[in-house]
Amino acid sequence: MAGNSIGKEFVVTTFGESHGNVIGVVVDGCPAGLPLSENDFQEELDRRIPAEPKIVSARVEKDVAKILSGIFNGFTTGAPITLIVENKEMKSSDYEVVKDLPRPGQADYPARVRYGGFNDYRGGGRFSGRVTVALIMAGTIAKKLLSRYNVDVLAYTLAIGGIKSEKHFSSAEIRKNRNIAATRCPDLICAEKMEQAIVEAKKEGDSLGGIVECVAVNMPVGIGEPLFDALDADLAKALFAVPAVKGVEFGVGFAAARLRGSENNDAYVSNDGKVSTFTENAGGILGGLSSGMPILIRAAIKPTPSIAKEQNTVNMCTLENTTLSVKGRHDPCIVPKAVPAIEASVAITLADHMIRSGYIPRVLKEH
Amino acid sequence: MAGNSIGKEFVVTTFGESHGNVIGVVVDGCPAGLPLSENDFQEELDRRIPAEPKIVSARVEKDVAKILSGIFNGFTTGAPITLIVENKEMKSSDYEVVKDLPRPGQADYPARVRYGGFNDYRGGGRFSGRVTVALIMAGTIAKKLLSRYNVDVLAYTLAIGGIKSEKHFSSAEIRKNRNIAATRCPDLICAEKMEQAIVEAKKEGDSLGGIVECVAVNMPVGIGEPLFDALDADLAKALFAVPAVKGVEFGVGFAAARLRGSENNDAYVSNDGKVSTFTENAGGILGGLSSGMPILIRAAIKPTPSIAKEQNTVNMCTLENTTLSVKGRHDPCIVPKAVPAIEASVAITLADHMIRSGYIPRVLKEH
Amino acid sequence: MAGNSIGKEFVVTTFGESHGNVIGVVVDGCPAGLPLSENDFQEELDRRIPAEPKIVSARVEKDVAKILSGIFNGFTTGAPITLIVENKEMKSSDYEVVKDLPRPGQADYPARVRYGGFNDYRGGGRFSGRVTVALIMAGTIAKKLLSRYNVDVLAYTLAIGGIKSEKHFSSAEIRKNRNIAATRCPDLICAEKMEQAIVEAKKEGDSLGGIVECVAVNMPVGIGEPLFDALDADLAKALFAVPAVKGVEFGVGFAAARLRGSENNDAYVSNDGKVSTFTENAGGILGGLSSGMPILIRAAIKPTPSIAKEQNTVNMCTLENTTLSVKGRHDPCIVPKAVPAIEASVAITLADHMIRSGYIPRVLKEH
Amino acid sequence: MAGNSIGKEFVVTTFGESHGNVIGVVVDGCPAGLPLSENDFQEELDRRIPAEPKIVSARVEKDVAKILSGIFNGFTTGAPITLIVENKEMKSSDYEVVKDLPRPGQADYPARVRYGGFNDYRGGGRFSGRVTVALIMAGTIAKKLLSRYNVDVLAYTLAIGGIKSEKHFSSAEIRKNRNIAATRCPDLICAEKMEQAIVEAKKEGDSLGGIVECVAVNMPVGIGEPLFDALDADLAKALFAVPAVKGVEFGVGFAAARLRGSENNDAYVSNDGKVSTFTENAGGILGGLSSGMPILIRAAIKPTPSIAKEQNTVNMCTLENTTLSVKGRHDPCIVPKAVPAIEASVAITLADHMIRSGYIPRVLKEH
Repeated sequence: MAGNSIGKEFVVTTFGESHGNVIGVVVDGCPAGLPLSENDFQEELDRRIPAEPKIVSARVEKDVAKILSGIFNGFTTGAPITLIVENKEMKSSDYEVVKDLPRPGQADYPARVRYGGFNDYRGGGRFSGRVTVALIMAGTIAKKLLSRYNVDVLAYTLAIGGIKSEKHFSSAEIRKNRNIAATRCPDLICAEKMEQAIVEAKKEGDSLGGIVECVAVNMPVGIGEPLFDALDADLAKALFAVPAVKGVEFGVGFAAARLRGSENNDAYVSNDGKVSTFTENAGGILGGLSSGMPILIRAAIKPTPSIAKEQNTVNMCTLENTTLSVKGRHDPCIVPKAVPAIEASVAITLADHMIRSGYIPRVLKEH
Repeated sequence: MAGNSIGKEFVVTTFGESHGNVIGVVVDGCPAGLPLSENDFQEELDRRIPAEPKIVSARVEKDVAKILSGIFNGFTTGAPITLIVENKEMKSSDYEVVKDLPRPGQADYPARVRYGGFNDYRGGGRFSGRVTVALIMAGTIAKKLLSRYNVDVLAYTLAIGGIKSEKHFSSAEIRKNRNIAATRCPDLICAEKMEQAIVEAKKEGDSLGGIVECVAVNMPVGIGEPLFDALDADLAKALFAVPAVKGVEFGVGFAAARLRGSENNDAYVSNDGKVSTFTENAGGILGGLSSGMPILIRAAIKPTPSIAKEQNTVNMCTLENTTLSVKGRHDPCIVPKAVPAIEASVAITLADHMIRSGYIPRVLKEH
Repeated sequence: MAGNSIGKEFVVTTFGESHGNVIGVVVDGCPAGLPLSENDFQEELDRRIPAEPKIVSARVEKDVAKILSGIFNGFTTGAPITLIVENKEMKSSDYEVVKDLPRPGQADYPARVRYGGFNDYRGGGRFSGRVTVALIMAGTIAKKLLSRYNVDVLAYTLAIGGIKSEKHFSSAEIRKNRNIAATRCPDLICAEKMEQAIVEAKKEGDSLGGIVECVAVNMPVGIGEPLFDALDADLAKALFAVPAVKGVEFGVGFAAARLRGSENNDAYVSNDGKVSTFTENAGGILGGLSSGMPILIRAAIKPTPSIAKEQNTVNMCTLENTTLSVKGRHDPCIVPKAVPAIEASVAITLADHMIRSGYIPRVLKEH
Repeated sequence: MAGNSIGKEFVVTTFGESHGNVIGVVVDGCPAGLPLSENDFQEELDRRIPAEPKIVSARVEKDVAKILSGIFNGFTTGAPITLIVENKEMKSSDYEVVKDLPRPGQADYPARVRYGGFNDYRGGGRFSGRVTVALIMAGTIAKKLLSRYNVDVLAYTLAIGGIKSEKHFSSAEIRKNRNIAATRCPDLICAEKMEQAIVEAKKEGDSLGGIVECVAVNMPVGIGEPLFDALDADLAKALFAVPAVKGVEFGVGFAAARLRGSENNDAYVSNDGKVSTFTENAGGILGGLSSGMPILIRAAIKPTPSIAKEQNTVNMCTLENTTLSVKGRHDPCIVPKAVPAIEASVAITLADHMIRSGYIPRVLKEH
């Protein structure tokens, strides 16, 4: 059993359900001496909810992080840090009608079997995308920690509903534009089209998926463990923990399957004694270890399973075939909300490995 | 540090290097009462080396598994099972010349930094594809265990060098054809083309990548843990531990990013009280739990990094730019060798979760 | 780093500091279907504070458990259960004066070094005995779970300040008498003497230690794992996590060192087909596995380190020798408070192993 | 299941059975750059078998360590180190007669239940004291690693059969005398008496227990993790994994239960800016963290359960009462053999925590 923790030395344990009292997280293993306050979490939590009402669920909560433990005099102490966000905007009655009708594409059916029907089914309960609020809080700590070592993690929307940005943007541009675009795509022209596509799908009672890309720069060389705790293996595990992720790839990823070795290999070059590579096809990871080049990851996000369109399903009590139109308040596209969750998952994993490697010490010296 | 173990209750620890004495594995947590002998491993180990010399490395070893512990009177005892295969066909001298010249696309450079130059660089050492021999031995045990519960795991080549099979095959056909085709592709017409493409690339001192697909049928519903120990998260972690994997996807995978919810959702249907789905887009996993439908995974394998073609690199001692042509004996395409490794990784992860869930007990009753 | 979690399948993570906002716990891996409400914790939390003001600290808090997650419709859901108790009766000013003067016998000095001075030193912070409130909440769940399988865990005071009970009591007597005696010793005549000894020590600005005994009956045979995850190994680990424990022994324990094999061995006897032993010297564990006989553990509790008597110490800023008289509000004997903490630690460990073994399933059927 | 590994960053996995092919160990997480050869293990393995035939089992094996992986050019590489010792002097026929008659005090009975009768019962199989050979090999690596940081771990016999040494000896004396005395007691007068007592017990077909003490000096301050991964908690867990250990205590241990706080507390003193304590009652650990003072541990070892004297037992097939006289070749006192095993367990745990804390880096610089 268990399974709600990740990490070996920067250990993140999440708790809470969509319609329970709180969503929360315990971060155990954060080095002592990191300045941290409740305010640090607000920007990150706000970024989860796009400001454009046309493309988001009607359940809009102002999430406010509350620190329960681990901070003293404005610094981390080395003790476990606990954070909660209260749930407020619940409309649990929406779910009573579908209690016995598993929604296609959601965890309802296997969860019902797995937990013998005792699971909190309201809003998907523990399987709701809302649990990513916990990831985002832990990720905020991880990013603050990484930033002291100049490691910068940045996620953004690459594609939605088949509309894909092909342009390259600098970190600064990404950071700026993803706050402008409700879809979190730094290519503002694409972003506009994506938004229209989402509105269109919503009108038809349908939903869209997409691809989130995440880049991490300035990683030192040699972070990661061989084989099973490979950096890419642990990053992939963390990403698949984000609901709706159906694929993960590094660097050129699946396209590598069609390349030749001579095309795919990143040849080395030395500039003034600094080793780098001409190309960046590997996504910054070789043999499970960071190569010092930017880490590049893409995650495929499936379209929101909860849609107004009528779908076939089965009544779990009677085992009779029936149909279902999911009412509730759902995002017609969860890609924008997945962006900060994926950024958080990557940051959490990198922080864990930086600590494991001894690169980040257990007490941070004053910078 | 550490990182050479995977699993929580069926724990696989591998050891050994490409040019060391042995490749070995300890499997801790295998239930007592499973019949097991050294012969059980031979077919699996043999399957790693395609019989067609045109498409494989000149280093062809007859790998023979030796049991060091954990078996008594022909049955597993519940104690850790240790298996080794001796390394024989080493030509370590091949590697002296490239000791200070990291091969592009290999782990040489980050490993040198990570281990301060103490790592065994011969043949990639611990980062060699040869370590998958350990995976295959552990996977053999996992598959025997799963087969008692009717769970069948089957991997095969889907694509090589851009040649992709689009036909569907039954389990029986796959099992038969992948033994006929040196490329392990069940579509024998495609397999022929793949073989030619490999021979072509080899001639040019180059290499090819591809895609391996793996299917697991008859999984019970509800296996997996929520969130971080999600079944897909743990499968992905295990797959990225196989050298050369650059992407992993479930069901329709990255294609889901372009679908609408109404297209992507697998609607439920009840036939004589048995719940199943019309489509199988989710790859048999919802919310990190098995749905009872076939688990479908694809892994992208990059082209072999070691190629005869000249490549740019840097001398690590002098930090001067130079070039390198990898001599050694390398497979022009590692996809066929990746097939049993991926099958093993999937089987190991499923076995671990079946035990964690309590579905497989700690003592197997006589069937 | 990390270190605030215990267990493999029933995973307990604690958080909070003596003078922080809360003491809390996340229990991950509790099977679904266990009836649980906030009321269940009250009796256990109350039992931590003896009603006799003469022998306890002046800091008396009415601790009330609040459920944050994991319960739905009165039952556990299989999701992580989070519980908090708010801290109220803090007088943090007591600690400013001793901020730089480590109290002998407390964690102050190594914690200051370990956390670079960032640790919350108020009331010992994370190292306070108050963190056992989290253990007790988790232990309450573990005991409810175990009781469904008839496993009963019972701790009580065996000795305080050299006064030791030599009489044997039934479970029912222990349960009744330990509620009568503020010292939690079921031998009420001894209990009276212990109380007097504590009052005496308190008057002199001093403190007393003692021994807590814990018995667990009706454990099935064969629970535990070989070698490193031996049942006694994990029980000992859990017990040493209780502040002030300096020794742990099973069955006759250290006395076994003076016995002969023929005296120490518990010979087997069969009564109507039921195997048991004539004696119970092994404490119910052989080779790390439960033998089916009562598990018997004793833990040595050191005297409260915080005493009013003047002690030598060193000013950590100036490194000058000085003296210290600990003011604050301290228990002259922490043995009574250790009793429920030790009972909880034992129950948590047994529940974890019962789940690991598959004896307790992941969904509890209605009994 | 599982359970044959210990440690978080210096991970020791053991395998092998008393009458199997080998006893072996995988050490994962040893930093790269430690000089290591097969010779390093010989002295340690030899020390396990006292040279005095009067007090040891007739099964005397010259154990020779063979390195299977992890060493290259005479140094550790950072890859998992695997070591085996072949079993040779087996007389498995001794055990056929007692197959169904569980030996009192051994794991036979619970192991039979736990493993459904599939366990290798010959010589106790996985539960034999012979598995400590694996511990000793791993401990040899841990001690070499610790010695580079001046941490010295030293175990010796304190008491056997009620004969207890009360004298204090220097590390140098202990090291010298424990090699002279077959009982491993540095007090040579006591050692002589102990030897006679063992001979006496053996004559009567009986056995003796005792106490092993272990001291570790020069530990830095602040090593360990709070609460559950406390240094004492992890040391105790490791010690209880040594067969026959029934009690563990630190510093004054159980005697602390009878002391007052003013007697038990180790008051601080500063000498030329170096902080130490007047007394060493705490055994070098406070709040689960090392205090910089010598770590002092004692483990109670029960008398060898296998004795020639007739004992009551039950036939597991017929469930009839019967008697048993254990033939085989057994040590009349296992305390001398437990000495290096306990030293190894302590060293393994300290090395793991030194690495976890970041004090020992992942690549050792040339000293």
